[in-house]
Amino acid sequence: MTAKITSAPTVIRTIAQMREAIRAYRKEAGAAASVGMVPTMGFLHEGHASLIGKSSQENGLTVLSIFVNPLQFGPNEDFERYPRDEAGDLAVAARAGADLVFLPSVAEMYPIPAATQVTVSGVTERLCGASRPGHFDGVGIVVTKLFNIVQPDRAYFGLKDAQQVAVVERMVADFNQPVAIVPCPIVREADGLAMSSRNVYLSADERREALVISGTLAKAPAWIESGMNASQLTAAVKEGITASPLADIDYVEVLTYPGLQPPASDAALSESESGGRIIVAAAVRFGRTRLIDNILISFPEAHS
Amino acid sequence: MTAKITSAPTVIRTIAQMREAIRAYRKEAGAAASVGMVPTMGFLHEGHASLIGKSSQENGLTVLSIFVNPLQFGPNEDFERYPRDEAGDLAVAARAGADLVFLPSVAEMYPIPAATQVTVSGVTERLCGASRPGHFDGVGIVVTKLFNIVQPDRAYFGLKDAQQVAVVERMVADFNQPVAIVPCPIVREADGLAMSSRNVYLSADERREALVISGTLAKAPAWIESGMNASQLTAAVKEGITASPLADIDYVEVLTYPGLQPPASDAALSESESGGRIIVAAAVRFGRTRLIDNILISFPEAHS
Repeated sequence: MTAKITSAPTVIRTIAQMREAIRAYRKEAGAAASVGMVPTMGFLHEGHASLIGKSSQENGLTVLSIFVNPLQFGPNEDFERYPRDEAGDLAVAARAGADLVFLPSVAEMYPIPAATQVTVSGVTERLCGASRPGHFDGVGIVVTKLFNIVQPDRAYFGLKDAQQVAVVERMVADFNQPVAIVPCPIVREADGLAMSSRNVYLSADERREALVISGTLAKAPAWIESGMNASQLTAAVKEGITASPLADIDYVEVLTYPGLQPPASDAALSESESGGRIIVAAAVRFGRTRLIDNILISFPEAHS
Repeated sequence: MTAKITSAPTVIRTIAQMREAIRAYRKEAGAAASVGMVPTMGFLHEGHASLIGKSSQENGLTVLSIFVNPLQFGPNEDFERYPRDEAGDLAVAARAGADLVFLPSVAEMYPIPAATQVTVSGVTERLCGASRPGHFDGVGIVVTKLFNIVQPDRAYFGLKDAQQVAVVERMVADFNQPVAIVPCPIVREADGLAMSSRNVYLSADERREALVISGTLAKAPAWIESGMNASQLTAAVKEGITASPLADIDYVEVLTYPGLQPPASDAALSESESGGRIIVAAAVRFGRTRLIDNILISFPEAHS
């Protein structure tokens, strides 16, 4: 038996200590310094581990942040019951290669209620932006704060939250934030379910039925190849997911990516979107648990 | 005759070159590096020169930015005719001690229209926030961009725009931007008129009459000492300014500072605000020109 050698990352709970740790690292590493950041809400799974691992490969220092941000939860959402497991998270962080773990309290991040609001328009009109009002405003301010505290060179985000990636990329461009956003592929369970901290909420029945989401999304490329346009594809995905009696669809949408707008034409997607990308995205409730998943599809340039 | 020796600052017009210049300075200066920034809209006067001079005393590198930001002008405001004088500004910059002058084009700052909006609530409800809708949203995004491009340690703002100082201080705190905001006193002409790039718009008659603003505000401390409450003081200042037949009052307000809220009590200000600060602020039109001015008054702690 061989064991991978891991060292426990340093846990930091205050902004001042976080800044000091980054300053000390940059001073020591000099021109070769590079800081990667993985912002999370904790309850880490292999999806998070893959982000930490990628950052660790690409940077001299990897900072994992764990902060369940109240501002991105609606009043009837699961902020209070959102799963938390600090000891488990620190074990994942160590194994995946994080150097520093930033674990601030709500009072440290919001000593007084924020008077400043960040609103990204356009890319937030649909999907979770429509069904979770204010959610991306909360994401915008907390990501801005975390970037200003850690000042990373690169930040790693999972594409399960593809709209979040589009929002953060747009905000970073508009704000000229000096950080490169690195989108990373969705990590799935062996049976296809997209990994999510919220999967822990699912009953055994719900867990089995939830496979209908990834199973249906996986058919989208073939449906597109068969000549479907956006509304046909949307209907087909809805029908596929509705096959599960436990599935309660919040949304299914077919949009351009990263602009997140409906395709301009009713033509077959393989024609109308040539040279571009689309996302097929779904949010589905199983009992009290809302799951999201998506597939990104790139189209080759049309040959004339 | 002796001449003060000045060296022409380096003019930089692109974001990439600005970042590179800061990087090079910080690398050379090492741990002793400190960057001061003076964000302006150009057409520099002695008020701006005092900010540059203070930055130059307190930092190893002083960056002056000159950018007439379209997003902070309303549709019926003076964006197009706002005065511009690049050669004159560079002479002031050199004399006052700026090292770098950042002079980006609108296309460099906004290659595509910003989708991200910054809104600071509370401190923007009154004064120019009320009479210039969207103005401080425009200030918020451009200041965020400039701070992210230059990454200064300190930024210098004049208190003629006292509400702007309050908005920027609040935004920087909410965003955890790693910069210290340094508010600096209003600089006045010999006869008392607050220096402003917009003073150039005034006709000879308007220029003479405009003195009524600073002249009236200067009486506020004595009026407070005589026992006035906020509404009495507001009325007295309005009456004083209205003495000029050319004066068209946009607002006169007496508010707490930096919270910019009406005093909680109707008592004499010298009692109700003990231990705090108030601002007496006025915006007054002379012809097409809108001027602002204010006085900040600190109250000693009451002795019991």
